[in-house]
Amino acid sequence: MGLLTRAEAAKIVAGLHAVEREIAGERFRFELADEDIHLAIERRLTERIGAPARKLHTARSRNDQVALDLRLYLRDEITGIIGLIEGLRGVLATLARRHLETVMPGYTHLQRAQPVTLAHHIAAYAEMFTRDRQRFAQALERTAVMPLGAGALAGTTLPIDRYAVARELAFARISENSLDAVSDRDFVVDFLAAAALCAVHLSRMAEEIILWSSTEFGFVALPDEFATGSSMMPHKKNPDLPELVRGKSGRIIGDLVAMLTVLKGLPLSYNSDLQEDKERTFDALDTLKPALALMARLWPRLEFDVAAMRAAAGGFTLATDLAEYLVRRGLAFRDAHEIVGGIVREAIAAKRSLEEFTLADLHRHSRVFGPDAVRSLRPENSVRARNLPGGPGAAAMRRYLRRLEDR
Amino acid sequence: MGLLTRAEAAKIVAGLHAVEREIAGERFRFELADEDIHLAIERRLTERIGAPARKLHTARSRNDQVALDLRLYLRDEITGIIGLIEGLRGVLATLARRHLETVMPGYTHLQRAQPVTLAHHIAAYAEMFTRDRQRFAQALERTAVMPLGAGALAGTTLPIDRYAVARELAFARISENSLDAVSDRDFVVDFLAAAALCAVHLSRMAEEIILWSSTEFGFVALPDEFATGSSMMPHKKNPDLPELVRGKSGRIIGDLVAMLTVLKGLPLSYNSDLQEDKERTFDALDTLKPALALMARLWPRLEFDVAAMRAAAGGFTLATDLAEYLVRRGLAFRDAHEIVGGIVREAIAAKRSLEEFTLADLHRHSRVFGPDAVRSLRPENSVRARNLPGGPGAAAMRRYLRRLEDR
Amino acid sequence: MGLLTRAEAAKIVAGLHAVEREIAGERFRFELADEDIHLAIERRLTERIGAPARKLHTARSRNDQVALDLRLYLRDEITGIIGLIEGLRGVLATLARRHLETVMPGYTHLQRAQPVTLAHHIAAYAEMFTRDRQRFAQALERTAVMPLGAGALAGTTLPIDRYAVARELAFARISENSLDAVSDRDFVVDFLAAAALCAVHLSRMAEEIILWSSTEFGFVALPDEFATGSSMMPHKKNPDLPELVRGKSGRIIGDLVAMLTVLKGLPLSYNSDLQEDKERTFDALDTLKPALALMARLWPRLEFDVAAMRAAAGGFTLATDLAEYLVRRGLAFRDAHEIVGGIVREAIAAKRSLEEFTLADLHRHSRVFGPDAVRSLRPENSVRARNLPGGPGAAAMRRYLRRLEDR
Amino acid sequence: MGLLTRAEAAKIVAGLHAVEREIAGERFRFELADEDIHLAIERRLTERIGAPARKLHTARSRNDQVALDLRLYLRDEITGIIGLIEGLRGVLATLARRHLETVMPGYTHLQRAQPVTLAHHIAAYAEMFTRDRQRFAQALERTAVMPLGAGALAGTTLPIDRYAVARELAFARISENSLDAVSDRDFVVDFLAAAALCAVHLSRMAEEIILWSSTEFGFVALPDEFATGSSMMPHKKNPDLPELVRGKSGRIIGDLVAMLTVLKGLPLSYNSDLQEDKERTFDALDTLKPALALMARLWPRLEFDVAAMRAAAGGFTLATDLAEYLVRRGLAFRDAHEIVGGIVREAIAAKRSLEEFTLADLHRHSRVFGPDAVRSLRPENSVRARNLPGGPGAAAMRRYLRRLEDR
Repeated sequence: MGLLTRAEAAKIVAGLHAVEREIAGERFRFELADEDIHLAIERRLTERIGAPARKLHTARSRNDQVALDLRLYLRDEITGIIGLIEGLRGVLATLARRHLETVMPGYTHLQRAQPVTLAHHIAAYAEMFTRDRQRFAQALERTAVMPLGAGALAGTTLPIDRYAVARELAFARISENSLDAVSDRDFVVDFLAAAALCAVHLSRMAEEIILWSSTEFGFVALPDEFATGSSMMPHKKNPDLPELVRGKSGRIIGDLVAMLTVLKGLPLSYNSDLQEDKERTFDALDTLKPALALMARLWPRLEFDVAAMRAAAGGFTLATDLAEYLVRRGLAFRDAHEIVGGIVREAIAAKRSLEEFTLADLHRHSRVFGPDAVRSLRPENSVRARNLPGGPGAAAMRRYLRRLEDR
Repeated sequence: MGLLTRAEAAKIVAGLHAVEREIAGERFRFELADEDIHLAIERRLTERIGAPARKLHTARSRNDQVALDLRLYLRDEITGIIGLIEGLRGVLATLARRHLETVMPGYTHLQRAQPVTLAHHIAAYAEMFTRDRQRFAQALERTAVMPLGAGALAGTTLPIDRYAVARELAFARISENSLDAVSDRDFVVDFLAAAALCAVHLSRMAEEIILWSSTEFGFVALPDEFATGSSMMPHKKNPDLPELVRGKSGRIIGDLVAMLTVLKGLPLSYNSDLQEDKERTFDALDTLKPALALMARLWPRLEFDVAAMRAAAGGFTLATDLAEYLVRRGLAFRDAHEIVGGIVREAIAAKRSLEEFTLADLHRHSRVFGPDAVRSLRPENSVRARNLPGGPGAAAMRRYLRRLEDR
Repeated sequence: MGLLTRAEAAKIVAGLHAVEREIAGERFRFELADEDIHLAIERRLTERIGAPARKLHTARSRNDQVALDLRLYLRDEITGIIGLIEGLRGVLATLARRHLETVMPGYTHLQRAQPVTLAHHIAAYAEMFTRDRQRFAQALERTAVMPLGAGALAGTTLPIDRYAVARELAFARISENSLDAVSDRDFVVDFLAAAALCAVHLSRMAEEIILWSSTEFGFVALPDEFATGSSMMPHKKNPDLPELVRGKSGRIIGDLVAMLTVLKGLPLSYNSDLQEDKERTFDALDTLKPALALMARLWPRLEFDVAAMRAAAGGFTLATDLAEYLVRRGLAFRDAHEIVGGIVREAIAAKRSLEEFTLADLHRHSRVFGPDAVRSLRPENSVRARNLPGGPGAAAMRRYLRRLEDR
Repeated sequence: MGLLTRAEAAKIVAGLHAVEREIAGERFRFELADEDIHLAIERRLTERIGAPARKLHTARSRNDQVALDLRLYLRDEITGIIGLIEGLRGVLATLARRHLETVMPGYTHLQRAQPVTLAHHIAAYAEMFTRDRQRFAQALERTAVMPLGAGALAGTTLPIDRYAVARELAFARISENSLDAVSDRDFVVDFLAAAALCAVHLSRMAEEIILWSSTEFGFVALPDEFATGSSMMPHKKNPDLPELVRGKSGRIIGDLVAMLTVLKGLPLSYNSDLQEDKERTFDALDTLKPALALMARLWPRLEFDVAAMRAAAGGFTLATDLAEYLVRRGLAFRDAHEIVGGIVREAIAAKRSLEEFTLADLHRHSRVFGPDAVRSLRPENSVRARNLPGGPGAAAMRRYLRRLEDR
C-alpha cells in the first residue's frame, strides 16, 4: 500500500526473524519497561535494525494485535483438540468393533435395566464426542475472523487492505466492526463452553470406569500404569487417572464461569479486564488436552471381565423382553406389563432368576407365551432382537460404526 | 407397523384430543398417583376410551418421551428467540441508519479514545447479536434430533419405523444410540450457553445505556415508561430496565452452571438428576425473552443528546488522526506518535482543546504539517476518513448495513 | 421522636393490620401503578385511613425498606434451615447408635480399603452438617443487621432512633454506613454459599445411597415411597429421591454464581440489579429445605443389608491391620508394608481371602507373626482396635456421639 | 508412644532437616517414581539415614498428610490475607479522616441522588472489608483442625496421641471422624467463597475508580505508575490496574465453582478428584493477594478533584433535604414530596439549579418554608445535618472511624 518501501519491509521481516530466534533460543531479554510482548519486540527490533522498526506499529494497535494473536493461537489449538477428539473416537470405534457381542447390563438410575453390549455402551460416548467435535468446529469458525485493521477501536485513516492480510493469514473472514473487533472475546467463551461440555463428557466416562473397576462391579481392571497403589494399604489399586479426569470437569466449568463473569457488564470497547482471556484459555487447554489424550490411551488397555459383565446382564433385565413378547402376540402393553410384573414378583419371592424360568413357569402367568418366549430370556437373544437404528444389536451397531467412520 | 388397528389408532387420537381440550380448559385433574404427565394422560385416556389406551405406551418409555418433549419444546422456543434476536437487530439497524453522521466518542478503558458514530457503536451490538443468532441456530440443529425408539435405554424389539416418526414430527435427524438418546441433555447446555452469552451481550448494552443516561455522560434520556422515580427523592429518573437486564445475565450464567454441574460425573443412561433440565430451561427462557423484547422496544424510544455526544467526541480523541496524518506524509509511526505526544502535552498544559490548534501551533512541533492537517482536527472529518471495512465512516457503515440486511 | 402524634400512630398501625388481613385473605388488589409492595400498601392505607397514611413513608426509602424486608425474611428462613440440619443430624446420630457394630467396608477411590462401621460412616455426614450448621449460624449473624435509617442511601435529617427500631425488631446490630446498607447483599451471598456447600454434602450422601442401592453393592433397599418403578421395565425400583437431591446441588451452585455475578462490578449504592437477590434466595430455599427434610425422613426408612455389608468388609481390607501388627512387634512400617504386600500377592494368586489365612500361612512370610495375628484378620476385630479419637471403634464412636449431642 | 526410639527420632529429624535444606537449595532431585512429595522425601531420607527412615510412614497415610499440609498452608495464607485486608482497611480509614468534609454526590442507579462525603463513600468499602475479615477469620477457624491420625480413612491401631500432635502443630481442634477428615475439603470452599466475595468487593471499588477517572466524571486522576498509555493514541491514560482487579473477580468465582463442582456427588472418602483443591487454592491466592495489596497502594496515590466532586454534589440532590425540611415543619412526607416535586419541575423547566433558589422562589410552592430553608440548599449543610449513626455527617463519621479502629 506504499506505507513501507520494499527495502524497509525486507529489513523488518529479517529483523523479526532474528528476534524470533532470540526468543526461541531463550536469549531474549524482556524488560519491565516493555509493558508487553508487542512493545518488547518493537524495542528489540529497533535495537537491531534502527529506523525501519519505527514504522512497525503503523496502522495497528495492541488492541487489534492481541485479538489477532489470541485468534491465531486458538485456531491452532482448537484444530489440535478436534484431532484429539477424533483420535479418542477412533479408539472407541475400534474397541466397539471388538465387543459387538460382549453382553453387559444397561443401567438407568444405576439399576440394571436391560441388556446391551459393551460396543453399544462405548458408542454412546462416541456420540457425545461427535457432538463435541461439531461444537469445536463451530467455535473454530467464529475464532477464524481476522481483526487487524480495527486499530485501537476505530479503524485507521491509513491505506491498508484488510482482505489481503486475511488471505495472507489464511482467515476466511474479517471482522465487520472495529469497536466489536477489539472487545469481542465471544470466541473464547465459545471455546470454553465447548471445552466444559467435553470435560463433562469425560467426567461421565471416568465415573463409569471408576464404578466398573470397583470390586462390586468388577467389570474392568485398570493397567498398573493408569492406577496407583496405597502408601498404607498394600492391596490397593486405585483408578487415579479417571478420578483426576472426573475432577477436571469442575476446573473447566470454572474457567467458563470466569470468562462470562469478566465480560458481564463491560462497556465497549477494549478494557484491560479482557487480559483474563488468555490464562483461562491456557488453563482449559492444559486441562482438556491431556485428559483427551490419556483417555484415548487408557481405553485400549482396560482389561474387561466379560464373564462378569455377562453374569450381571441377565435376570430381571429381561422383563421388558417378556413384556414385548406379549405385545408382539397381540396383548396391550399395559396388560403385558402387569403380567410380567407378576412374573417378576414371583421370581423375587422365590429368589429365582428369570433365566431359569421354563415355559411352564411362564404359563402360570399367561397362556399367550409360546415355546420361543423362553428364548428371549437370554441376554444374548435380547440384544440380538434390538437392531432398530440406535439399538444394541450387532447388525445395528455395525451399520452405526460404518456411519461413524464416514462422518 | 401393525401394532395398532386403524380403529384403535383413531380412538387413541380422538381421545388424546379430548384430553388435550380438558387440559387447555383447565378441567383436567392431576393426581399424585399419576407420578408424571405421561401416566396422567394415559390414566385419563383409559378412563375415556378404555382398552385401546392400554396400548398407548407400546414401544416407548417415559425416558425417550421426556427427551422428545423437551426437544420439541426447545425447538419452538429457540426458533422464537432467533426471531427476537432478529427483531432487536433490525431495530438496531434502523437506528444506525438514522445516526450515520451522529458523531460520538469511542472509548477504550472508559477513556475517550477516538471519534466514532452512534451508528458504528450500535453496529457493534448488531455484530454480537449476529453471532448469537448463529449460535442459537446451531443449538437448534443439535436440539432437532428425534429420540423416540430409544425406549427406556436400549431400544425395543417391537417393529417401529423411527424415520417415519421423525418425518411426522418434522425432525431432520434421529438419535444414533439409544443409551445416549435418553441421557443426552447436551442440547440444553447448548441452549443455556448461547443464552448466557446473549445475556452477557445484553448486559454490556445495558451498562452503556446506564452510563450514557448518567448526568456525567448525558448522552441519552430514557422515556418515562422505561425509568422509575424515587419514593424519597423527587428529582430522580432511574434507568430501571437496563439495570434489571444487566442483572439478569448473572441469572442465566447460573442456569448454565447448574446444568453443567448436574451432568458432571453422571453415569449412563437416564438418571432422575436430569429432571433439573426443565426448570433451568424455563428459567433461562423466562429471563432472556423479555430482556430481548424490551431492549428492542427501548432503543427506538431513547432520546439521544447528539450535541452532548458531539461535544465529547472532540479534543484529544483527534491525536491519532494527527499522528496518522504525519505517517501519510512519510514519517515513521513512532516518530509521529512522539511529535503528537508533545502537542498533547502542550494542549494539556495550556488547557486548550486540540480543535483550537492552528497550523502555526502545529508547526511549532513539526514542519511536516500542511494546511489540511487542521482539517483532520474535526471529529466529523476524522470519522469520514475511516471508511475501511469495519470502520465508522458513513460509507463503510452503509455497506455494512446492506450486508447485515442480506444475512 | 415527635414525627407522629399518638393518634396518627394508632391509626396507621390499625390500618396496616387491616391491610395485612386483606392481603392474607387475598382480597388485596395489586395495581400496576403501585410499582411495588411498598407503594401498594401505602396507597391502600391512604384509601382506608386518609391523611395519616401520607406520613407513612417518613424517614424511610424503599431502598432501606427492601433491605430490611429481605433480612427479616432470611433471618427466619436461616433459623428454619438450622432446625432442619439439626433434625437431620439427630436422625443420623440415632441411626449411628443403632449401628455401632455394623461392620462395612470403608472406601477410598471407590475401592474397598479398610473396615469401618455404618455408625462411623454416618458420623462422617454428621460432621459435614455440623460445619453447615455453624456456617448458617454465621450467615445468620451477618443477616441480622438493621438497615432502617439508611434512607435512600444517605440517611435522613429527621430525628429518628435507629437503636430503638433495632430493639423493636430484635436485631442485635445496626448497619454502620448508609451507602453500604442499601447496596449490601453480602448476606445473601453468605446464605447461598452455605446453602451450596450444604447441598453438595447432600449430593455426596445421595451418591452413596444410590451406589449402595445398586444390585452390585446391595447394601441398602429403599422403601417404596422413596423409589419409583418403571413404565416400561416392571422389575425396576429406582432411587429417585436421592437422584433428585444429587441434582439439586447444581441448582444452588447456580444460584450462588448468579448472585456473585450480579454484584460483580456494581457501583454504589442501590442499583436495580439487586432485585435478583430475592428470586435466587427463594429458589435456593425451595430447593434446600425439602432436600434436608426428605433426607431426614429417608434415612430411618432405609433397609440395610448388614450381612452384605459384613461380607464386603473383609478380605484385603485387613492388610493394613496385618502391617500394623508387625509394626507393633517392632518392624519398621516400610518393612511391614512389603511383607504384607507379599501376603496379598499370594492371596490374589491363590484366589484366597485373607480371612482364610492361618498362622502357618503367615509364617511363610514372616516369623514375627504370633497366634494373635490371625485374630486381627476379622473385620470386627479390626474395627474394635481403632478406638482413637475419630476412629470407627464402638467406644470411640460412643464418645463422639455424646460430644455431638452436647454441641 | 514408643514407636520410635529417641535415637531413631533424632536421626529422622536431623535427616529431614538435611532434606529440607536440599529442597531449599534446589539440590533435591524429584523422580517420577516418587509419585508425590511424601514418597520423594521418604526415599531421600532413606538414602541419607537408612533404616530409621523406613519408620517414617508409621501411623500415617498420604491421605491424612495431604489434608494436614493443605490446612497448614492455608492457615498461614488466610492469616496473611486477613493482614492485607486490615492493611487496606487502615488505608481507607486514614483517607476517610482526611476527607470528612469533602462533599461529593452519592448515587443510586448511577444517578446523582444526595450529597455525601468522600469519607462516607470510602467507609462503605471499609464496611465490606470488615465483613470479609470476619468471613476469613471464620474460614480460618474451620481450616485449623488437625487431621493426622485419620490414616488412609479409618484411623490406626497403633498407639498415637492426636491431641499432642495438635498441640505441637498449634491446632486448637482435631478432626472428629477419620472418613470425613481425609475427604473434607469444605475449608477450601470456605476460603474460596470468602475470596470470591472479597474479590467482588474489590471489583465494585475498581468499577468506581474507573468511572471516577473518566473524563465525564473527572473526580480522580490515577498516578502514572497505576495507569498505562496507548501505543496508538498519545493522549490516553488508562486505569489499567482497577480494570485488571475488576476482571479478577470472575477468576476467583470460577475457582469457587470449580471446587464445588469437584466435590459434587463424590462418595466417601478420599478420591483423587480432590487433587484439584491445591491449584484452585493457589490460583485464588495468587489473584487475591496482589489485588488487595495494590489497591492499598493505589488509594493514597489517587488525586481527587474535590472541586469537581463538590460541583457535582449540588443541584437536584438537595430535593430530599427540602422535603425533609417541610416534614420537620409538620407536613406529611407525601405532601412534602409533592411540593418539592413541583419545585424540581420548575427548576428543570427554567434550567436553574436548586442552589440558586431564593426564599421567594420557595414560597411560590409553599408558605411553610422559612428563611433557614435556603440554608439546606447547600450540599455542605445537607451533609452536616445527617449525623445519625451510619450517616455522612462529619461527627457521625468521626464516631464511626473510632469504632472501626477499635474493631
